[in-house]
Amino acid sequence: MLAYQTKNDLGNLVSMADLSTNAIGNLLDRAEEFKHGAGSRFTQPVYAVNLFFENSTRTHTSFEMAERKLGLNILPFDPSTSSVTKGETLHDTLLTLDAIGANIAVIRHKQNRYYEPLIAGCDLNLGIINAGDGSGEHPSQSLLDLMTIREEFGRFTGLRILICGDIRHSRVARSNAEALGKLGAKVLFAGPQEWFDDSLSDLGEYGDWDELLPTADVVMMLRIQHERGVSNDHFDPEAYAAKYGLTVQRALHMKQGAIIMHPGPINRGVELASELVQAPNSRFVKQMQNGVYVRMAMIERICLDRHLGGLS
Amino acid sequence: MLAYQTKNDLGNLVSMADLSTNAIGNLLDRAEEFKHGAGSRFTQPVYAVNLFFENSTRTHTSFEMAERKLGLNILPFDPSTSSVTKGETLHDTLLTLDAIGANIAVIRHKQNRYYEPLIAGCDLNLGIINAGDGSGEHPSQSLLDLMTIREEFGRFTGLRILICGDIRHSRVARSNAEALGKLGAKVLFAGPQEWFDDSLSDLGEYGDWDELLPTADVVMMLRIQHERGVSNDHFDPEAYAAKYGLTVQRALHMKQGAIIMHPGPINRGVELASELVQAPNSRFVKQMQNGVYVRMAMIERICLDRHLGGLS
Amino acid sequence: MLAYQTKNDLGNLVSMADLSTNAIGNLLDRAEEFKHGAGSRFTQPVYAVNLFFENSTRTHTSFEMAERKLGLNILPFDPSTSSVTKGETLHDTLLTLDAIGANIAVIRHKQNRYYEPLIAGCDLNLGIINAGDGSGEHPSQSLLDLMTIREEFGRFTGLRILICGDIRHSRVARSNAEALGKLGAKVLFAGPQEWFDDSLSDLGEYGDWDELLPTADVVMMLRIQHERGVSNDHFDPEAYAAKYGLTVQRALHMKQGAIIMHPGPINRGVELASELVQAPNSRFVKQMQNGVYVRMAMIERICLDRHLGGLS
Repeated sequence: MLAYQTKNDLGNLVSMADLSTNAIGNLLDRAEEFKHGAGSRFTQPVYAVNLFFENSTRTHTSFEMAERKLGLNILPFDPSTSSVTKGETLHDTLLTLDAIGANIAVIRHKQNRYYEPLIAGCDLNLGIINAGDGSGEHPSQSLLDLMTIREEFGRFTGLRILICGDIRHSRVARSNAEALGKLGAKVLFAGPQEWFDDSLSDLGEYGDWDELLPTADVVMMLRIQHERGVSNDHFDPEAYAAKYGLTVQRALHMKQGAIIMHPGPINRGVELASELVQAPNSRFVKQMQNGVYVRMAMIERICLDRHLGGLS
Repeated sequence: MLAYQTKNDLGNLVSMADLSTNAIGNLLDRAEEFKHGAGSRFTQPVYAVNLFFENSTRTHTSFEMAERKLGLNILPFDPSTSSVTKGETLHDTLLTLDAIGANIAVIRHKQNRYYEPLIAGCDLNLGIINAGDGSGEHPSQSLLDLMTIREEFGRFTGLRILICGDIRHSRVARSNAEALGKLGAKVLFAGPQEWFDDSLSDLGEYGDWDELLPTADVVMMLRIQHERGVSNDHFDPEAYAAKYGLTVQRALHMKQGAIIMHPGPINRGVELASELVQAPNSRFVKQMQNGVYVRMAMIERICLDRHLGGLS
Repeated sequence: MLAYQTKNDLGNLVSMADLSTNAIGNLLDRAEEFKHGAGSRFTQPVYAVNLFFENSTRTHTSFEMAERKLGLNILPFDPSTSSVTKGETLHDTLLTLDAIGANIAVIRHKQNRYYEPLIAGCDLNLGIINAGDGSGEHPSQSLLDLMTIREEFGRFTGLRILICGDIRHSRVARSNAEALGKLGAKVLFAGPQEWFDDSLSDLGEYGDWDELLPTADVVMMLRIQHERGVSNDHFDPEAYAAKYGLTVQRALHMKQGAIIMHPGPINRGVELASELVQAPNSRFVKQMQNGVYVRMAMIERICLDRHLGGLS
């Protein structure tokens, strides 16, 4: 089964753009199997290492859980006590982990497309899973969002997905817009115009937040990324919430059956009202639950591609 | 078996005040069974996560060992690389870990009674074990102290327990005083008067260090907590040692059969003479050994309450 | 089998000087067995803890992998969140880990011969493996270098080993020079004269880099240790590379069949040309691969000495 469009990406999972709709469907199907109790099929040890060069709770812990549920052996790696502090390059760090016997590296890094030279070098045997690159992609988040939407509506075609907030700096916006378009959904963007990126205009249409809100089946709120310097001294959280936040008042205008999503961590009371985080139509907790299962499917997929753990 | 006095605390273990003397006895009995080789009874996987927002070697490593001996799966969590650095609240962090599938969270946090809103929220499925809250409680330390005392004397009734040092800032002093009083021991306090807290006066009697020392069966020395800003520029370790430390000279006045205890880490030569740390009547090492077994008992207790790991 | 020369070091592995040539041979033989698929012989749980007080990727991760391959239980330990930050001594930290039940401590520490008081104290039950002490020794690196050389040439006698660079601050230079001399090889040193240490002159002969290079069977390049303050503001990487680096041009003068080694992390383009890192005659990757197996042999050796894990 050839799940990837390019030879370089067979055995790695770094971008939604590399996944055909068929490959996405297979990953989501397998994630549902894991969710309903399917166990690991590994018969040989597989060694994974998680390299998080940016802070994370959700994604990092979720990959750790997925790896444990699959029965993988996990090597610890802390960038702040590694040889990276002595100036070692990412490539040499991976060359080391590869030599030591790591089979899979899950990497989050602030540099966009950090994975390209690693894959192009062709001197690494380990498989790379991109857990987020700069303002680029975040395929495991996209897949868990897709899983959550598919569980809700049973389909993507014809759905209207409204993504609101800091679109320009969001890995989630880009990955999701690409995948959802490919799967037949209509993507809409809202939020401050200066945070809209023209490079996204072929992926979806930008419009007025309050006009689009009542038309959407899925309302995806993006996080204000303080840590990326998105906001500044002049940023006023209350003003933002009033203009672009999903407030309790605004949520009343949502379409019947529409759901709220957020990739987390949430700035409560800024982009999303605290009262809505666990509201009946919020899927925030379900997204995190599904995250473990899509990551199990992603890891198993890489192991199948690479004949690791006795899989083939 | 209902081990807890309040419904909210069933399935969590956050304060000695929630434990009846019967529940304490059961935990110590089970800890002794583990110490004498009893194995884990888990038949299903249980996932634990240890959230230490304050530095620790003894408590942190001891919980990690207890979890390993019980065969738990342990998720790594490092506050300094988590989304807490992006402003995520403790509640949202736990909501995440809960969604991801963690069953038990062992938490140390600098805020007193940090656990109350977490338990009151009722939206978390995971069980919370308090590994120390600010200057509040430290139940696992109390239980290991109780286990060590019970091993030594076979009883609590009638024992005189002298706690000396920084009582005001000590989690240990408060937890222990409460539990020991309930179990029938007489609690005495000594040390600098400005470090005595009037809220403790119903738990034990404050008196002169040199007068009380020869009357005590157990001498518990508390740590000078430099890291909590207890001492200051004017603090003179030698003067403190001379006035309130357990020196070699002073130890000669201890009652026959009396023992020395210290929760660690020790400021050698300040509150406790270096020569006494491993003296024949010191139980410092034994306290640390017992710590693993009481923590195994605590974790198993939570799992029983919550029907985790196939226990019931 | 008495593998160590001194009673104190039986059950610890802290210095190459403690290993007889026979003991070295046995460790390398066992490492080769592990490399060719030999499994762990442990029948009882063994608990290891890795204390890295200096940053590391290669050595740290390699020990973690070795421990996992042997099936050990591994306790996490992060100096930056431990009680060391509260002033606890290394000895008290180890006393704690020992009491908690750790059987083996792998330690890297910046202080030369940090292990001597720990072993001399005789109050610790756990075995100590030195993973590098200051500018002192690094026995696991030495053993992996020896394994790599023996795999290449099948012998040590008569080989000419040229070690070039910052000899004075290098743990590798000293450990290797001692062991290689004992095994019958001829050790040569090159590099800036101010970095040559007279205490090394009985271990090998210092000479001119360009004159010695064509005579060597093994060319060991040492790392410029920026993090140890070796270089300063006046250090010119290009000038260093031109004068003492192994450049592509200079490598052309290497003897037929000679190999390049480097302990890592590499300053690419300074002590070693980037193009040579994975050249056909470079053994950089092989050294890292072999590192896992010698560490497995070292750990097993300690467990045999101490009758841990059901071994005897």
